Amino acid sequence: MSVRTGESVFDWIDTRAEARAKAGLARRVRPRPADSTDLDLASNDYLGLARDKRVTGAAAAATLRWGAGSTGSRLVTGSTELHTELEYELANFCGAQSALVFSSGYLANLAALTALSGPGTAIVADQHIHASLIDGTKLSKADVVVAGHCDVPQVTHALATRGKRRALVVTDSVFSVDGDLAPLAELSAVCREHDAALIVDDAHGLGVVGDGGRGAVHAAGLAKAPDVVTTVTLSKSLGAQGGAVLGSGRVIRHLVDTARTFIFDTGLAPASVAASLAALRILREEPERPARALDVAQDLAFRLKEKGFLVSTPTAAVVSIQAPSPEAAFAWAEACRTQGVVVGCFRPPSVPDRISRLRLTARADLSDGEIERAVRVITETGASAGAVSRRP
Amino acid sequence: MSVRTGESVFDWIDTRAEARAKAGLARRVRPRPADSTDLDLASNDYLGLARDKRVTGAAAAATLRWGAGSTGSRLVTGSTELHTELEYELANFCGAQSALVFSSGYLANLAALTALSGPGTAIVADQHIHASLIDGTKLSKADVVVAGHCDVPQVTHALATRGKRRALVVTDSVFSVDGDLAPLAELSAVCREHDAALIVDDAHGLGVVGDGGRGAVHAAGLAKAPDVVTTVTLSKSLGAQGGAVLGSGRVIRHLVDTARTFIFDTGLAPASVAASLAALRILREEPERPARALDVAQDLAFRLKEKGFLVSTPTAAVVSIQAPSPEAAFAWAEACRTQGVVVGCFRPPSVPDRISRLRLTARADLSDGEIERAVRVITETGASAGAVSRRP
Ligand SMILES: Cc1ncc(COP(=O)(O)O)c(C=O)c1O
Ligand SMILES: Cc1ncc(COP(=O)(O)O)c(C=O)c1O
Repeated sequence: MSVRTGESVFDWIDTRAEARAKAGLARRVRPRPADSTDLDLASNDYLGLARDKRVTGAAAAATLRWGAGSTGSRLVTGSTELHTELEYELANFCGAQSALVFSSGYLANLAALTALSGPGTAIVADQHIHASLIDGTKLSKADVVVAGHCDVPQVTHALATRGKRRALVVTDSVFSVDGDLAPLAELSAVCREHDAALIVDDAHGLGVVGDGGRGAVHAAGLAKAPDVVTTVTLSKSLGAQGGAVLGSGRVIRHLVDTARTFIFDTGLAPASVAASLAALRILREEPERPARALDVAQDLAFRLKEKGFLVSTPTAAVVSIQAPSPEAAFAWAEACRTQGVVVGCFRPPSVPDRISRLRLTARADLSDGEIERAVRVITETGASAGAVSRRP
Repeated sequence: MSVRTGESVFDWIDTRAEARAKAGLARRVRPRPADSTDLDLASNDYLGLARDKRVTGAAAAATLRWGAGSTGSRLVTGSTELHTELEYELANFCGAQSALVFSSGYLANLAALTALSGPGTAIVADQHIHASLIDGTKLSKADVVVAGHCDVPQVTHALATRGKRRALVVTDSVFSVDGDLAPLAELSAVCREHDAALIVDDAHGLGVVGDGGRGAVHAAGLAKAPDVVTTVTLSKSLGAQGGAVLGSGRVIRHLVDTARTFIFDTGLAPASVAASLAALRILREEPERPARALDVAQDLAFRLKEKGFLVSTPTAAVVSIQAPSPEAAFAWAEACRTQGVVVGCFRPPSVPDRISRLRLTARADLSDGEIERAVRVITETGASAGAVSRRP
């Protein structure tokens, strides 16, 4: 009998790794220093609040006062008065009846989809929804139909022909890869016509879209609709960490009672709660920030389109530029980085359509000089990546 | 045609809520103040580090230096040098080759289970594994067999008769409800015999079990085993927030390349990273803390058993006491709270066997007087909850 060492159990991983390396799809963690002088066009810190002294000061003070962690599940010891305050102010800001805070937007999405569906439910999901929503549909036990991207007639058809009594339509508000906007008003009308609920992930809308950054759901007049549930993250425009579900009182109470990712997860750390609260207050005091983020995005997109790139049309702070291949996207992003401009590089499986992209994010605090520099570097490096002049 | 308002779409929630209320299973969020004088026997802050000034000071300083949030996915802008430092020190402390940090233990578990399995895999899971591991098996697309609690022969049988080439055995090290220990050495031997990998959730072992709190996997001599993968949380004995997967270099690299909850989630906030690092360093400097937490747990259990309660036998910092019904458990916990002693109350569906329990957690920093007081209050209130003298 041979002596088993357990070495071979994960040999299959090497095969996969080689295949990914060949396809130009290997990924790497690149830790950044605290004092980087790079120009950041890759983070989701759309309003420049992650390092705002009012935000970091509030987070630091909360840590000293409340502790580093929340110490338990939200239902045991993990709810502090700070959490309640954030839930109140977040609901209030977004115009919703109630809110429930989670340790991430990812877990908030899993909560909304699993707690509000079940075997008696049909879910109709946009083809481009975020990974966390997709995982939510997988955990839901519902019948899942994937509809074409922003295809309202397909959603209508799926609702009309569903085999289940209950139904949820699920969409991002601002899609994370291209930054395009879902037809929320139309989707809501169709949902109402067909007795379905609408779940909207407003992760990239909050803080950027709508009146003072109240988000795309608020902008569509749906913040108080009894049949709409919104999820948000605290980790993008609010510069912190965590997520939340917004909806009617009964929906939120139902999540408290049944959402596994609420019940079985440690509450959000006090620092992140306090940071989100401080960021929300800045949003109220400086309502011009969201519009500035959108302006910067549109300016970036306009200038890059002028150079001949295939650029998305921004409806929020996200701008994407198509690249000819995963390898080209990677090389392009690397070349930008070498020139001190950090951009996102989205390759399969992080893109819904297998088209690799540079993903730029606008920030309200980018100066005109920085925008100028970004466009110059992206253009120069794009030429060698073979990405120019692909305009149809 | 009637005017639809969308009001009725969630009417089904009210029916469910009424049923839960009748069954004594309604839950409530109870926010705590910062300056509570209650005696905490409910949090998972086993070593009393969440409010340790070295931990909160490090978290506050990191927030000021690095920002309130990590600003992006770990693969874009969400990895700071602090994250790398924590991964290095955590792996080093636990004796593992590599570590990868997540924004929660929940998402770390989803990552390990989904990235290391797939349609060609059989998963054999202990009946009492944590909710996040269960969700991981549901997302995995693997064949899933649930084995009896700590039932090594059943695990062996399931591995021997599996229909898939690859296999994962999945277990908690210290089970979260009763605090009992999984037979890790036996499970590992069986896995090796049957070419399976072992995934261990050491959430309640880290910081309490084993040499200096290096966890149950380290204690079983499996920290460097090439076929064992460990998950931990930073939110319990380390007093912070977040989670991690520990394993061989190739396993960790595979997670970086493929784990959806790593790729599509914002990196852990700098404050939580720094708090975890500071807590780890305290563990190194004060290796007596873990043993003290265990002593307190055993002391609590011994004294409560003496009073006639059905008490678990602690192998870590968790102690549970059976209650006659969900209502009794709730009333008992409420009565304790009225007397200033906060205990956990676990009712279905948070218990694997439908038996409701008080769940006490020991802390290394509990004084003898506090233990005395806890036992007195739990005993007095237990009498009226009808929980005494149920000893067989
Ligand atoms: C659309 C969308 N939803 C949800 C999430 C998850 O939020 P979080 O990172 O807070 O977990 C993200 C990104 O991270 C996202 O882009
Ligand atoms: C055994 C176990 N695993 C995982 C988790 C999840 O960890 P986190 O709260 O950090 O998400 C918990 C509790 O929260 C747990 O008890």
